[in-house]
Amino acid sequence: MRFGILGTGMVGQTLARKLVEQGHEVRMGSRSADNDKAAEFATEAGQGASHGTFADAAAFGTIVFNCTAGAHSLDALHAAGAQNLSGKVLIDVCNPLDFSKGFPPSLSVVNTDSQAERIQRAFPAARVVKALNTVNAAVMVAPERLPGTHALFTCGNDPEAKQIVEEILRGFGWEQIIDLGDLSSARGTEAYLLLWVQMYQVLATPDFNIAVVRG
Amino acid sequence: MRFGILGTGMVGQTLARKLVEQGHEVRMGSRSADNDKAAEFATEAGQGASHGTFADAAAFGTIVFNCTAGAHSLDALHAAGAQNLSGKVLIDVCNPLDFSKGFPPSLSVVNTDSQAERIQRAFPAARVVKALNTVNAAVMVAPERLPGTHALFTCGNDPEAKQIVEEILRGFGWEQIIDLGDLSSARGTEAYLLLWVQMYQVLATPDFNIAVVRG
Repeated sequence: MRFGILGTGMVGQTLARKLVEQGHEVRMGSRSADNDKAAEFATEAGQGASHGTFADAAAFGTIVFNCTAGAHSLDALHAAGAQNLSGKVLIDVCNPLDFSKGFPPSLSVVNTDSQAERIQRAFPAARVVKALNTVNAAVMVAPERLPGTHALFTCGNDPEAKQIVEEILRGFGWEQIIDLGDLSSARGTEAYLLLWVQMYQVLATPDFNIAVVRG
Repeated sequence: MRFGILGTGMVGQTLARKLVEQGHEVRMGSRSADNDKAAEFATEAGQGASHGTFADAAAFGTIVFNCTAGAHSLDALHAAGAQNLSGKVLIDVCNPLDFSKGFPPSLSVVNTDSQAERIQRAFPAARVVKALNTVNAAVMVAPERLPGTHALFTCGNDPEAKQIVEEILRGFGWEQIIDLGDLSSARGTEAYLLLWVQMYQVLATPDFNIAVVRG
């Protein structure tokens, strides 16, 4: 399959490299076509890896990951272009974290709205699925780093798009995938970050997750 | 030990009855001294159970549970009286849920503040510990309803008060108790409710919790 990865940070790098390892064609996009980290990915990740602008990457992918920082996601997606996202599954991994007052961050969107819904409203023809935002990059593509079965959530208005995302997640090794419903449920998975950052502080590692247990 | 339980709803009833079962003296408090549900508790729960006003219950307990609804908690605690809470461990179980737009609720306090911090600011001489607000009443006192070990969080500014609460929680059967730090970490456990209500909808039961797994 062909994937566009928007964002060259740890999350984008980790997802892009995993997808190339799995034999997919992956184009990493950034603000400028000559981004060093994107170029390094294209050189090092092996056959199938390429790079370009946000628009290049979005046009290339049949599935697009938004791995840009929450605060800049809408700008990055506008640079990618509505026409390059139209009809495509857009996996939104970002969290609207506000570090302006240091650590722990607060959220710039919370409670009665979510970054995922903002993106869906701005790009109504994209098939937005919120996923992977509740775990650290390393855990995203290797859930077996942690013991037992633990949880990942999908949120989105398009059931078929969620199904496609679920298959990608199963390919990464995820087993406990909980479909939380329509995109408004991303309010829950984004707000969970406020708990995540507290756990990160006391556990002193980002290498953790939650498992959902039920009676 | 002597406990004051503020609130006569499901959470207050469940905690009060469990504490009586464990041999403690428990006074349930409500807005008026002749509340039917509090009187029923005092009659039915067995030796050690009594009831009264919020002030009666707070004065009686050496440890006080706030089991009132989040929206009414500050009013209830003012009725209980600062002098009756001074120096006492005040276990804040409430969540600031706003049901004014139906289900799922939003939060009336979130992100850069929490209900627990509001309570601590209003009652600076109380030793506020946030706990138990992340699970349903039945699970609070019987974690063995769910398989395996799963998580509960404590947040508070007073380490000794958190230690006392942890012992109470262990008495209920809790094993994975995570001290998240000072009371500002309650922003995380209260915000988690936005995820909890989504899970409640899709799991179609309140009988669930999260376990924290780490690498």
